[in-house]
Amino acid sequence: MQGKEISQAVIRRLPRYYRYLGELLEDGVERISSNDLSERMKVTASQIRQDLNNFGGFGQQGYGYNVKHLYTEIGKILGLEQDHNMIIIGAGNLGQALANYAAFEKRGFVLKGIFDINPALKGKEIRGVKIRMMEELGRFVPENNVEIAALTIPKEKAIEVARVLVDSKIRAIWNFAHTDLNLPEHIIVENVHLSESLMRLSYNICRYNEEHR
Amino acid sequence: MQGKEISQAVIRRLPRYYRYLGELLEDGVERISSNDLSERMKVTASQIRQDLNNFGGFGQQGYGYNVKHLYTEIGKILGLEQDHNMIIIGAGNLGQALANYAAFEKRGFVLKGIFDINPALKGKEIRGVKIRMMEELGRFVPENNVEIAALTIPKEKAIEVARVLVDSKIRAIWNFAHTDLNLPEHIIVENVHLSESLMRLSYNICRYNEEHR
Repeated sequence: MQGKEISQAVIRRLPRYYRYLGELLEDGVERISSNDLSERMKVTASQIRQDLNNFGGFGQQGYGYNVKHLYTEIGKILGLEQDHNMIIIGAGNLGQALANYAAFEKRGFVLKGIFDINPALKGKEIRGVKIRMMEELGRFVPENNVEIAALTIPKEKAIEVARVLVDSKIRAIWNFAHTDLNLPEHIIVENVHLSESLMRLSYNICRYNEEHR
Repeated sequence: MQGKEISQAVIRRLPRYYRYLGELLEDGVERISSNDLSERMKVTASQIRQDLNNFGGFGQQGYGYNVKHLYTEIGKILGLEQDHNMIIIGAGNLGQALANYAAFEKRGFVLKGIFDINPALKGKEIRGVKIRMMEELGRFVPENNVEIAALTIPKEKAIEVARVLVDSKIRAIWNFAHTDLNLPEHIIVENVHLSESLMRLSYNICRYNEEHR
């Protein structure tokens, strides 16, 4: 499989290509040159050619890229051509925001369940998906072939819950808790640390102020 | 100012150091060696020494780092010693999640207002902060010295709202909308593209499957 030798830097950029190509498709654009794509995405055309060459043969000299084909191929590389069953742990605002974001489903991320510790939420539904109590978690994961768990709970609880998930053979954790989970290597963890993102923003404000003082 | 020459890679790691040092402080730890910090953070001790050397003289050979001092200095570099006034645009689940996350305030991010287009929300409060209508936005920003706007609205609206923010002299946008804003260079943009994060997770699941087939 070609994917193996692709650098993490390219991988980090692929979802952005996928997003732009999806928008082009929606706009009915069938072909696009690396120059036009470069202008839209604000990266150099040579960067685009280099990145997309990793996947071999999508572009033709002087003819541009076939948008549909490139979109499909990048989708395959990103694993979006197959469904991934998902659960959300924590039915607070953030968990609800994720549950209500129907676009994930369009990409093949199928929400199977939502879990919380608050008994008042038991049996309620978000977008037709039932909220369940944590006691069910360990059995629910294997029974429903759940691959991905989004963790939107406080850090104090996150490590304990992650252990239950590992024992129930979860494949990946999408971690919004403000802590590192330190799980066995075969568990894939994608962190979204919002406070760190806000600190980078704050750093960039200060650096700008220093430079323009 | 030392900060200027620090690479973006180091900057990306600083908030994580800040988080770990904050936890050490809470646990009452006064000094820590680069080896102990290395073990906790799962990065090499030499990486830690290199990173922290960027800021000069925080560690002493054979004596370790003064946790409080290092925490304070990194906080200064990240711009956390001064307050940043902030607003949230979009009072949906994600906007509410951010508004309810009091830990931001502890770091100096002061929530001044929340904006939405839904008249039913007008005048309601989240954590004591009033929800206002979008018509007020352009005036509110300069009158309240707002530096940062978190955008938690659909991409169709985000570009239009970003323009109002730019005109009202916002400094930075924390962008959760699934689009690139393409703003003038003096506006700092920190993107949180959740669907791209989920695609990287999906890619890593597939790559793992390929390698262990």
